[in-house]
Amino acid sequence: MSTRRYAFGRGEDMTHPDSIRATLAEFVSTFIFVFAGEGTALALVKMYSSGSTMGASGLVALALAHAFSLFVAVAVSLNISGGHVNPAVTFGALVGGRITFLNSIMYWLAQLLGAVVASLFLRFTTNDMRPSGFIVGPGIGVGHALVLEVVMTFGLVYTVYATAIDPKRGSLGTIAPLAIGSVNRLCVR
Amino acid sequence: MSTRRYAFGRGEDMTHPDSIRATLAEFVSTFIFVFAGEGTALALVKMYSSGSTMGASGLVALALAHAFSLFVAVAVSLNISGGHVNPAVTFGALVGGRITFLNSIMYWLAQLLGAVVASLFLRFTTNDMRPSGFIVGPGIGVGHALVLEVVMTFGLVYTVYATAIDPKRGSLGTIAPLAIGSVNRLCVR
Amino acid sequence: MSTRRYAFGRGEDMTHPDSIRATLAEFVSTFIFVFAGEGTALALVKMYSSGSTMGASGLVALALAHAFSLFVAVAVSLNISGGHVNPAVTFGALVGGRITFLNSIMYWLAQLLGAVVASLFLRFTTNDMRPSGFIVGPGIGVGHALVLEVVMTFGLVYTVYATAIDPKRGSLGTIAPLAIGSVNRLCVR
Amino acid sequence: MSTRRYAFGRGEDMTHPDSIRATLAEFVSTFIFVFAGEGTALALVKMYSSGSTMGASGLVALALAHAFSLFVAVAVSLNISGGHVNPAVTFGALVGGRITFLNSIMYWLAQLLGAVVASLFLRFTTNDMRPSGFIVGPGIGVGHALVLEVVMTFGLVYTVYATAIDPKRGSLGTIAPLAIGSVNRLCVR
Repeated sequence: MSTRRYAFGRGEDMTHPDSIRATLAEFVSTFIFVFAGEGTALALVKMYSSGSTMGASGLVALALAHAFSLFVAVAVSLNISGGHVNPAVTFGALVGGRITFLNSIMYWLAQLLGAVVASLFLRFTTNDMRPSGFIVGPGIGVGHALVLEVVMTFGLVYTVYATAIDPKRGSLGTIAPLAIGSVNRLCVR
Repeated sequence: MSTRRYAFGRGEDMTHPDSIRATLAEFVSTFIFVFAGEGTALALVKMYSSGSTMGASGLVALALAHAFSLFVAVAVSLNISGGHVNPAVTFGALVGGRITFLNSIMYWLAQLLGAVVASLFLRFTTNDMRPSGFIVGPGIGVGHALVLEVVMTFGLVYTVYATAIDPKRGSLGTIAPLAIGSVNRLCVR
Repeated sequence: MSTRRYAFGRGEDMTHPDSIRATLAEFVSTFIFVFAGEGTALALVKMYSSGSTMGASGLVALALAHAFSLFVAVAVSLNISGGHVNPAVTFGALVGGRITFLNSIMYWLAQLLGAVVASLFLRFTTNDMRPSGFIVGPGIGVGHALVLEVVMTFGLVYTVYATAIDPKRGSLGTIAPLAIGSVNRLCVR
Repeated sequence: MSTRRYAFGRGEDMTHPDSIRATLAEFVSTFIFVFAGEGTALALVKMYSSGSTMGASGLVALALAHAFSLFVAVAVSLNISGGHVNPAVTFGALVGGRITFLNSIMYWLAQLLGAVVASLFLRFTTNDMRPSGFIVGPGIGVGHALVLEVVMTFGLVYTVYATAIDPKRGSLGTIAPLAIGSVNRLCVR
């Protein structure tokens, strides 16, 4: 990941064993992340279905589930695919010239497919529950939520560059998955 | 753990000091994990025995207790026995040719014995409480729970291979116990 | 950070690329920390605005939000600026002769500016909520709170010196951001 | 810490700068641990003083406060004094021949003094609150609690030996403070 080049990539690179291995790693990582994170959300929805609000401990449960599972997802794929998991990170790596365009297409497909398969598994294991989706709180407009998402994604990609991509990161690389998992915590607040 | 071979193992290997030391490490690790994890579950059962539901904070307490204690259990035995703790991980290592058949038998016996001794200690310290067992939620069948367990065990063994067994893991090995402990968190959701 | 000298610093050092890069890193780190920490506080205020008290799980949410976000903020700037984030840490580094006076002025401005910009973003994304400020509990005087703050800041700066600045820290440097993030947890109790 | 010898120690060793530095490190570490852990307990007592039970989220708050503060306490003194903090760990190091008898006396005095000073500070900052002490739950005898403490202290000292003292610990030493902090979590359940 330490060389920097802007490239479209060649077709035969996509069938190279390293590319296929990295794409598979992204698929499994995203699957683990979505299965654990969204699964926790569904468990809380079921637990509080009687109308009571879940309060701060529900926030803690959701935040920890996402932080821990992203930490694991990044750790298991860091050495193979760079541990992107999130399409926004792949986009950031593409803009920074760390991945070819064709490879980023493969990563995106793997990430989307991993999330879809995880959702299908969750739908089966919860006997047909569906995600409740996100809603903005009362008095908050869509524009506010958009800025919130932009700030959070900036924090995530900035952290990935500082701890996992930076060639001078030194021993920080050891705790990169932990830092990336922790910053993601912000995204589910 | 880095050589790969499929072997039944020889009888005299079982009495080798390294084998006995590894088996003892698995026994102590599983004891620590079960004592802490199941002990927390019993503490919560006692605390909420009056019929009120424990809600999201109970989930967080259980999840953290299992994550932290598996992290510790793996950390203290990683260099000695490979830090399996869970029989499914030993089975995965056997299938991958990382451990002989005879040694995996010894590991399994040590893990089961560690769990039994931990349970006996818990039964004494709680003055004869017994585990409440797992039940599936309303509207969920045994088949759904089975798939859930399969997915979760897949995630656990995948993480062990990627962070603790992979000979190219590099500095990831340092945080392997933490990643393994975190992924286990999924298993108690 | 390992050389020790007391110096005022020269004007041309302030325009050196390394100084500017370090100052920018402090700005972004403090922005991330304040946006995440204060944002969590605002989310809890909104959630419990109906007058109910938030209890222990609110404390856990606040403490984890601050610990995780300081961990990330220190990790992403440790190699560039030393990962101060908090003006008190910069002051401690100045007293210990680890930073020149002019550079510490630049750090302080960057930290204050980062906090201000984070607050402006929060005010926009929450549609004009304002921080609720700190109040001391019933029966506690301002003198007590002052001593509490002194003890906590001592713990924070002591930890920074022991894990991030000490030239003999060895492998402890790897987990320095985590230790600094954890000790900060005390500060929001 | 890697040499192994049983020794009473000589009087002049006690005034050696290294001994004094190590003793001071134990004092500060125990101060940080007790101030943060017991301070959290007092904050919860105050918060729930109206008679309501604190439930699982109070357990989580207590457990995390103790885990995080022991992690920090061990991290800041590991390279200087071995990061004992707890008198039981010093006793274990004495039995294992890792510390002289005179030095362990100095460590114990420093640990007790650190806890006393932390308590005095807490009593001041909380305007004269006192620790509520431990009580065993209904139906649990003192003998049961004794066995529980024995098992938990065994787990703590075992973890210290496996991750911080073992000369073959390798990269595990990097996460030793984290493992020791996590296993301590069990002790406050």
